[in-house]
Amino acid sequence: MSKLDNERANNLKSSLLPDPEMGEPFLLTPGPLTTSFAVKQAMLRDWGSWDGDFRAMTADMRRRLLALLGAEQGAFECIPMQGSGSYLVEAMLGNMVPKDGKLLVLANGAYGLRAAKTMEAIGRAYHLLDKGDYLPPRGAEVADILANDPAITHVLAIHCETSSGILNPIAEISQVTYAAGRKLLVDSMSAFGAVPMEPDQIRYEALVSSANKCIEGVPGFGFALVRRSELIATKGNCHSLSLDLHAQWENLEKSGQWRFTPPTHVVAAFLEALKAHEAEGGVAVRGARYTSNRDVMVAGMRELGFETLLDARWLSPIIVTFFCPADERFVFDRFYELMKDKGFIIYPGKLTVVESFRIGCIGQMDEAIMRRVVAAAKQSLEELGVTSAAPPQAAFEERKKLNA
Amino acid sequence: MSKLDNERANNLKSSLLPDPEMGEPFLLTPGPLTTSFAVKQAMLRDWGSWDGDFRAMTADMRRRLLALLGAEQGAFECIPMQGSGSYLVEAMLGNMVPKDGKLLVLANGAYGLRAAKTMEAIGRAYHLLDKGDYLPPRGAEVADILANDPAITHVLAIHCETSSGILNPIAEISQVTYAAGRKLLVDSMSAFGAVPMEPDQIRYEALVSSANKCIEGVPGFGFALVRRSELIATKGNCHSLSLDLHAQWENLEKSGQWRFTPPTHVVAAFLEALKAHEAEGGVAVRGARYTSNRDVMVAGMRELGFETLLDARWLSPIIVTFFCPADERFVFDRFYELMKDKGFIIYPGKLTVVESFRIGCIGQMDEAIMRRVVAAAKQSLEELGVTSAAPPQAAFEERKKLNA
Ligand SMILES: Cc1ncc(COP(=O)(O)O)c(C=O)c1O
Ligand SMILES: Cc1ncc(COP(=O)(O)O)c(C=O)c1O
Repeated sequence: MSKLDNERANNLKSSLLPDPEMGEPFLLTPGPLTTSFAVKQAMLRDWGSWDGDFRAMTADMRRRLLALLGAEQGAFECIPMQGSGSYLVEAMLGNMVPKDGKLLVLANGAYGLRAAKTMEAIGRAYHLLDKGDYLPPRGAEVADILANDPAITHVLAIHCETSSGILNPIAEISQVTYAAGRKLLVDSMSAFGAVPMEPDQIRYEALVSSANKCIEGVPGFGFALVRRSELIATKGNCHSLSLDLHAQWENLEKSGQWRFTPPTHVVAAFLEALKAHEAEGGVAVRGARYTSNRDVMVAGMRELGFETLLDARWLSPIIVTFFCPADERFVFDRFYELMKDKGFIIYPGKLTVVESFRIGCIGQMDEAIMRRVVAAAKQSLEELGVTSAAPPQAAFEERKKLNA
Repeated sequence: MSKLDNERANNLKSSLLPDPEMGEPFLLTPGPLTTSFAVKQAMLRDWGSWDGDFRAMTADMRRRLLALLGAEQGAFECIPMQGSGSYLVEAMLGNMVPKDGKLLVLANGAYGLRAAKTMEAIGRAYHLLDKGDYLPPRGAEVADILANDPAITHVLAIHCETSSGILNPIAEISQVTYAAGRKLLVDSMSAFGAVPMEPDQIRYEALVSSANKCIEGVPGFGFALVRRSELIATKGNCHSLSLDLHAQWENLEKSGQWRFTPPTHVVAAFLEALKAHEAEGGVAVRGARYTSNRDVMVAGMRELGFETLLDARWLSPIIVTFFCPADERFVFDRFYELMKDKGFIIYPGKLTVVESFRIGCIGQMDEAIMRRVVAAAKQSLEELGVTSAAPPQAAFEERKKLNA
């Protein structure tokens, strides 16, 4: 009864083939994203979490992530942890910021603000630099804050702030942080694996990311990459049993096992995704594919009259924010459904001042797919009766702020 | 490139068929366990977590779990949460025990002790009743403790303490808890779905369980079933942002979405598992299947000379602890490998006084499989050259304690 019976096996092939026109839509989102079939297929068996086979998979995954990071041998440790990306951010903050420490949170969007809320919830001191919907925190202002508040021990930067799609100036932030004798923590959730983050190039003590972003796995856990010398000092620091990175690390080192039941199928999928990442050519090639996805898509959308929130210098290869057209016939919910009918799931915007939406460039997609996205957008506009995709005047005012 | 190519599809059928002799082993463990093929197959597509299709799946899952619980309409709420089972225990404690409350932890094994460690980590007051490896906490002693410590506001009971397999006397514990005007919280991780827990029969305020136990899903999240009137009062109580049940509930009620990225594939698998649970006949029939799995397996093992830690009254239908034979030729690691070679993954024991191992009865298995388990154990003993599976004298001393 637990083994695949023949009838099911025979039906399998056809039931798995997505209908090319009306089948499973592409996810133009910042994750969960469209994964390869091989990644999902790796979930078609059950593993015992205590068994040697699964322990070997965990070890292999940790090794591969460290290799991908590109840190000096032995300098960093990889700690996978159950839960979503936000859990990993909370784990990083709860472990790395001492109980008597203070964190400077650099926020320019939802994920920076969530980190500040996390500090609030766990009852640790922080200072929030809130730059609003997208304006990047710059080196000079960070240096100023650090000079004026000697209590600050750590700085948190969001690598790609996914709520606008901006790639924050992480090198500049790292430089001023260490010049002021403080330590940097990085939320690289949506960038890791596609944007280089070698700690020899940009210094930091820890970064977190999750399985379902640029490595192209499915959601269910995340991981922290932590400088070993710092990690050792965090024992007993965490406000939570479940989110204790140090305890998870100790257990992995001692027994090769996760402390608590791991999402075995999701780990198997992720291992497959890591192998594909490597086979594709690693961070540089993955990043180049996403960049060309973005360039093709942005060029096509601009041709239709759409405008991006950010100009080229700040655009990430991860996700792009577009202003909604001024034309009243453009209703986002309807545009969303029309795009979905054509096989593409897009993403609502998060700007507070003007209406916007987002299109992701990550996942199992290439330029050919991005051209189909643009064609679908064109057709959807026509179906809505929108003749110009130009944004309202307020959008242009918004854009000026970035270069002010 | 992101769609299944033909060659892969053609190879799929054969690659999925486990070799009946040497293929994927059965997991005789307390989860992750052996799931049906249909459950795993549900993970073969990607969902956008913001999309209406996935929101409908979440709503359907929550509705089905409440129906399965069998509480009075509207009395309980279902809150799924990312992470492993231990995360759900921590979330329940951090939400339900007020900051100035005090918890009586009833421990008779690893999971009770972990709950106490959780209280330690989150800095809330507790009293630990530690009954050792397996002796059940009884009503009279719980009543005594409650009478002597008026600061105690809540009691935590472990439904099935999976580390020995004992089914704790939850009805008795509930009765004395409410007689003393206190509130009961239940870790029903390994029992929910197979052992009745209708709150009209046994009163409690919240229980937690996870996707990969008796509902037979794959691991990656858990859920809390909480009395609505109590839940409402927990706002702002949690020590963690990620593990805040109240915030998760509010978000689900408001938008139909999980607060943070859900493990979409694992949720899809779980929904399939819930449908199968219902089709099989619900809690009673699922419990009956596990019970007959256990009875067949225990009878067979006893015939081989093995002895169970517990006598019939305390045996759960979830997992059974056996003493390791006294014969020196019995080495657990070798027995494990021999059983694995025959297609069965068993589980090490957790007793501190005598050596033991465990065999699970849950997952996609029936009596026929359990007979094969016994046959494999017989053969493995022969291969080890063990002529008697009788336990050492110390094991019988241990057993006497239960009836003392
Ligand atoms: C930069 C960043 N941080 C944190 C998160 C939170 O991750 P999750 O939704 O998995 O909790 C995200 C999710 O997209 C993100 O992009
Ligand atoms: C009774 C009980 N509580 C808690 C847990 C912890 O669950 P997890 O390993 O998913 O964290 C388990 C796991 O088997 C359990 O059986």
